[in-house]
Amino acid sequence: MVQYRANSSIDRVTSAISDPTRRAILERLARGPGRISDVAKPFAMSLTGFCKHVRVLERAGLVRRTRRGRDNTLKLSPQPLREVAHWILKYEQFWNARLDRLEQFFASHKEKSR
Amino acid sequence: MVQYRANSSIDRVTSAISDPTRRAILERLARGPGRISDVAKPFAMSLTGFCKHVRVLERAGLVRRTRRGRDNTLKLSPQPLREVAHWILKYEQFWNARLDRLEQFFASHKEKSR
Repeated sequence: MVQYRANSSIDRVTSAISDPTRRAILERLARGPGRISDVAKPFAMSLTGFCKHVRVLERAGLVRRTRRGRDNTLKLSPQPLREVAHWILKYEQFWNARLDRLEQFFASHKEKSR
Repeated sequence: MVQYRANSSIDRVTSAISDPTRRAILERLARGPGRISDVAKPFAMSLTGFCKHVRVLERAGLVRRTRRGRDNTLKLSPQPLREVAHWILKYEQFWNARLDRLEQFFASHKEKSR
C-alpha cells in the first residue's frame, strides 16, 4: 500500500501558490510588509475578494497578519516554501539527466557533421 | 495594476502536485516507467479514480502516457517542475536570511552566557 500523509503542509502550500493572484501577493510582500489596504490597492478586485486570498495564504503559513487596532499589516513568511522546494528538487536529477542526454546528442551530431 | 498570467503552466503544475496521491504517483514513476494497471495496484482506489489523477498529471505535463494496443505505459516527465522550482527559489534568500538571523541570535546568546 502506498503511504502518504493527507492534508499536509505541502498540500496547503502548493494549493495556495497555484493561483496567480496569490503568487502576486507573495511577490509584493517579498518587497516588504504592508498594510492590507495598501497591498490590496493595485489588485483588480474587491477588498473582500483580496482578503479571501490572504486567508488561504495565512492558512498555508505563507503570510502573517499583525493586528494593531484598525491596522492590519501583512508580512511574508516564506519558510513553508522550503518543504516544497525540497520535494521538487528531488526531481532535479531527472531534468538534468535529460538535459545531459540532449547535450550529448547535439555534441555527437555536431561531431558527425564536421 | 498587478500583472500576472492566469492559467499558466505553473498554475497547473502546483495544483497537480497539491494532492498527496498525485505526488505518490510521481514518486513511483521516478523509479521507472510502468503499465498503468501495475502502477495503480498499490493505491487504495479504483482504477477509474486513479486514472482521474493521472489525467491531471498529464494535463500539467508531468506524466506521459504511451498507448500500445491495450497497454498504457506511464512515464515521468519532470521538466514542468523546473519553472515551479525557479519561482520558489526566489524566496530562498528570505528563509536563509531568517536562518542567518537565528544563528546570529544563538551565537551572541552563547557568547553572553560564557
